[in-house]
Amino acid sequence: MIGAMARAIGVDIGGTRTRVAAVEGERIVARRAFPTRGIDEVREAIGEVLAAAGWARPATIGVGAPAPMDMREGRILGCPNLPHWNGVEVTKELQRAFACPVYLANDATCAAIGELAFGHRRRDFVYLTWSTGIGGGIVSGGRVVWGATGQAGEIGHIVLRPDGPPCGCGKKGCLEALAGGASLARRGSEALGEALSAREVVERAQRGDPHAHALVADACRALGQGIAILWEILEPELIVLGGGLTGSWGFLGPQVLASVGTMARGSPEIELTRLGDDAGLLGAVALPDYVPPQWGPR
Amino acid sequence: MIGAMARAIGVDIGGTRTRVAAVEGERIVARRAFPTRGIDEVREAIGEVLAAAGWARPATIGVGAPAPMDMREGRILGCPNLPHWNGVEVTKELQRAFACPVYLANDATCAAIGELAFGHRRRDFVYLTWSTGIGGGIVSGGRVVWGATGQAGEIGHIVLRPDGPPCGCGKKGCLEALAGGASLARRGSEALGEALSAREVVERAQRGDPHAHALVADACRALGQGIAILWEILEPELIVLGGGLTGSWGFLGPQVLASVGTMARGSPEIELTRLGDDAGLLGAVALPDYVPPQWGPR
Repeated sequence: MIGAMARAIGVDIGGTRTRVAAVEGERIVARRAFPTRGIDEVREAIGEVLAAAGWARPATIGVGAPAPMDMREGRILGCPNLPHWNGVEVTKELQRAFACPVYLANDATCAAIGELAFGHRRRDFVYLTWSTGIGGGIVSGGRVVWGATGQAGEIGHIVLRPDGPPCGCGKKGCLEALAGGASLARRGSEALGEALSAREVVERAQRGDPHAHALVADACRALGQGIAILWEILEPELIVLGGGLTGSWGFLGPQVLASVGTMARGSPEIELTRLGDDAGLLGAVALPDYVPPQWGPR
Repeated sequence: MIGAMARAIGVDIGGTRTRVAAVEGERIVARRAFPTRGIDEVREAIGEVLAAAGWARPATIGVGAPAPMDMREGRILGCPNLPHWNGVEVTKELQRAFACPVYLANDATCAAIGELAFGHRRRDFVYLTWSTGIGGGIVSGGRVVWGATGQAGEIGHIVLRPDGPPCGCGKKGCLEALAGGASLARRGSEALGEALSAREVVERAQRGDPHAHALVADACRALGQGIAILWEILEPELIVLGGGLTGSWGFLGPQVLASVGTMARGSPEIELTRLGDDAGLLGAVALPDYVPPQWGPR
């Protein structure tokens, strides 16, 4: 859509997998995906997609990561899920290697940008990832709501039950602790007495196990409450859901929507992402068009 | 600050009082305040402040109201608190009377705009009214977050306790039903067996009445939870509080802040408005600079 996006590289560092793509205009011309390690592997993968695309060098590189970060310095801060990335100066390192401007942002914000630039293209919406954790990205009037330091959209850490179960963030009763995949897996494993993934807990619920069913129903109720809260605060045109747990939307969706129905005035429009796993990757590609100047390359 | 604001009229329609002011640049040159009635009284008061200011006619008129509204049509929709305003075509009526562009917006959004244009002038903040009801206005990157139809910022209607007390909006356990002045007055009167205002319930709490104390403590906890939720979702630089209940901030503030402390990661900056009761009035004056073109005068 914009000049800077001609021949751009996008990098989506996930908790388990990293995706790298070369994009020309709106078309992915080359891509790699591999288990998440550190910056050396990302540098190498960028080299590979450049070669596959037949480009000498990219116009820009955009990187999304599921970690707290210093946007001004382009550095990832301490994050237990990404041990190889603690303190890594992402933008400096990649700028040095590929001699082009590099942009870094939160992965859920990237997914929202992906929807804005390549997906449904609405101007007022929220993107919500329902996965191991729960994250969000907010667009208002066609612009990203970044917050004071770029950390806005932390919908997973709104406290719904002050006396609820502990969250990885140190607080209690966060939405993520009630409805996130990691929590569902942990609480399901405890309740059923065997090690289960979130997907397996959902499958057990679907097959009628009462313990799993109660846990899953509670998670859906909490997610619906979180969506209703977003709706009242932001009045988005649309709420877009992505992330692994939406793979079971046929079973989970009606429960989530029933909860939204009792907790929101009006009827929020809710749909699943049409970009699949690529929302964050495509958003990373489009970062140069959306990152505010104070956080852009210097 | 901007040309359109030379010789502007601001109108703040409150649940009990209406304020009208003539503002030149940043200075209020004439003002009127009177018990809220209908549009005839507003028209008359505008005439009076124009005469007092010595203006033939205003450049613009901005109106804030605590009611749902159709921004496109400049019309106030059904609102039990404002019986004289149901269905009134505010912008058309005033445009006809004063032959200038007229703008209409929600009063809490106006208060946020007042802070942006005349108050602390931060670029990422939330304004929160803690009064009979609870409302909010959101500014991100120096721009108002309006939502799809201009109704964003309804922080009073986020559900914190799905099984909590009924709210005037028809839902249960909304922040407003837990911490708003009307709810505090009603629940306090029930608990103490006599008709009390919210201010009186707070005074009883301050003097050590255990029932009043428990109710007020619960309201402060809920407000703190709401503020923490805003912080996680929006990461504002600042949260500004206004409204009648902040008059007792010396007693209430520490309880609210303690709740924020346990429910937000990080330390949100929170301060009371420095514009007193004029935040909404001044924001109404500045509306021409902030209302998006699709909702402006035609």
